[in-house]
Amino acid sequence: MLEDKNKTNNPTPVSELGEFKLIEHLTQNIQIKNSSTLKGIGDDAAVFKHDNSSVSLISCDMLVEGVHFNLRYVPLKHLGYKAAVVNFSDIYAMNGIPKQMVVGLAISSRFTVEAVEELYAGMILACERYGVDFVGGDTTSSPQGMQISVTVVGEVAPDRVCYRKGAKVNDLICVSGDLGAAYAGLLVLQREEKTFLANPHHTPDLEPYDYVVERQLKPEAGKKIQQLLSDHSIIPSAMIDISDGLASELLHLANQSNVGLKVFEDKIPVDQQTIEVAEEFHMTPLTLALNGGEDYELLFTVDISMHDTIRQLSNISVIGHITSDTDGRYLISNSGQAIDLKAQGWTAF
Amino acid sequence: MLEDKNKTNNPTPVSELGEFKLIEHLTQNIQIKNSSTLKGIGDDAAVFKHDNSSVSLISCDMLVEGVHFNLRYVPLKHLGYKAAVVNFSDIYAMNGIPKQMVVGLAISSRFTVEAVEELYAGMILACERYGVDFVGGDTTSSPQGMQISVTVVGEVAPDRVCYRKGAKVNDLICVSGDLGAAYAGLLVLQREEKTFLANPHHTPDLEPYDYVVERQLKPEAGKKIQQLLSDHSIIPSAMIDISDGLASELLHLANQSNVGLKVFEDKIPVDQQTIEVAEEFHMTPLTLALNGGEDYELLFTVDISMHDTIRQLSNISVIGHITSDTDGRYLISNSGQAIDLKAQGWTAF
Repeated sequence: MLEDKNKTNNPTPVSELGEFKLIEHLTQNIQIKNSSTLKGIGDDAAVFKHDNSSVSLISCDMLVEGVHFNLRYVPLKHLGYKAAVVNFSDIYAMNGIPKQMVVGLAISSRFTVEAVEELYAGMILACERYGVDFVGGDTTSSPQGMQISVTVVGEVAPDRVCYRKGAKVNDLICVSGDLGAAYAGLLVLQREEKTFLANPHHTPDLEPYDYVVERQLKPEAGKKIQQLLSDHSIIPSAMIDISDGLASELLHLANQSNVGLKVFEDKIPVDQQTIEVAEEFHMTPLTLALNGGEDYELLFTVDISMHDTIRQLSNISVIGHITSDTDGRYLISNSGQAIDLKAQGWTAF
Repeated sequence: MLEDKNKTNNPTPVSELGEFKLIEHLTQNIQIKNSSTLKGIGDDAAVFKHDNSSVSLISCDMLVEGVHFNLRYVPLKHLGYKAAVVNFSDIYAMNGIPKQMVVGLAISSRFTVEAVEELYAGMILACERYGVDFVGGDTTSSPQGMQISVTVVGEVAPDRVCYRKGAKVNDLICVSGDLGAAYAGLLVLQREEKTFLANPHHTPDLEPYDYVVERQLKPEAGKKIQQLLSDHSIIPSAMIDISDGLASELLHLANQSNVGLKVFEDKIPVDQQTIEVAEEFHMTPLTLALNGGEDYELLFTVDISMHDTIRQLSNISVIGHITSDTDGRYLISNSGQAIDLKAQGWTAF
């Protein structure tokens, strides 16, 4: 977990600094790491270049208080870290490497300079860990709440780009890590919030839930998995990151590739702590894995000839295979039943 | 003015479509124009390339309802157009050409599908007129109001980038177009809103204010000016776009270039309609030009050897010159008084 040093005895209202000074204050320690970044924060636009041998990727996410995050249980530094990382995840999902980031931030007057510092500290930490340059943005006021927009630019060799389309019949379907943990963490945090609201003297014990809570508050993107695949000369035929839940992402892959698929319940990786939380909440672990969302693991397909290589890689599970479009999209349950896959993922509206 | 076809008899709630279908619906007619854009909307990230001879520029703006726009007098199509164009302006201010755009959009449940269509129609129109590809984004719900984030990527030859720094002693200070009109338009629109709130049967007559209202609602970015400069082989030594007001931008240029400057009141271009509105509101036209903001004209400096060339160009005014840092930053009034320049521009907090 990240340290939370959000507390201070003399909070500074943002209005005391004004927009220009606030940005200067927040960005003064940001260092440029990539030689491709020629100019970062401080002009009308950031300037960067790409060499001849790569193409650029761009991805954008909008995070809204009250929809995507609840500041009653999400520390601002974690929020900043997560806001950055989920965008890096989109770049890894194209088999690229994130390089530059710009951030738009709108905040109501209830946020102090120290609060925005914490948010920025999380973003800057994420940039450091993932080798990304924080090159610009826009900070402004909002009548209510906090809205964050993160845009990330990445790069990849043209012959290594992985789209959602591209999965072929007989390809193996793989996922990294384990699934459902982020949603399990959310269930625990939401329960703690309710308990706290009913009894403000309640001190939460999140220790038994450390793994799932961390997966919810501080997800990581597929940097290591991408490196692992690259080291073994594996280029997925199709790839997507798991943000809305495995079921939803499987259907995206299948739809865009015009294929069917079959995945097996007993192959879907779920952590023991996720299983325990699911039981506490009278849910099946499978529901969390299929529909939970926010795991930011990679879902990808590889040619069947890669079978021996891929099954030896740690942290990657083969969960099924691609079939022809007319064969449908099915989950085979532990009892052998074929269940038609439906996305029940999180919907924003 | 753009046509406003926002009205329909059967408004569709956004919840009826859901996120994926809404995005599909909104983006189905978006065409890719630039050969550098390899993949637009519909994957984890958009894909684009730049040739060897250019560098990339990236700029981001956050627009918040109740802070940057008031939907009581801003039609959604105009808002979409303006949201895109003000970002293109940042790219032109670096002497670049905007190429790709991604948009994050958060909307409360009061917005219908038709409303979002209008907003998108404005953005798509701006992209068409400026040759920009709309390559991606994120659409989500918001507990209250509308928040828009626009990020634009552009390109420019490495030896043609114009930063804010770079102005040298004796350089000429130039602006494109005329100043203060956008703020004059805002004054008129705000007055009409008040009149309307007091008397809902009041029908506004904006005809006498057509120019300034259009400058406020539908600004244009410096595409033609940049082309003009390029045609005459002029590379500005420093450049910035006028978003917060001339005074604020002059100080940005001077601070980043470590120089002083002198500009002359009688050289600052102000349209006749702006002058008339200023008089109606008992303000001086100079105040509107210096502090009004949102003009999105280009402010730039050129070497003094360019004097004969630049003064022959239509739509460009030489308003002063750069002095040494110790000489200060002054406006010379029509009466010959030297007034210390202070930014009184719009502040977001």
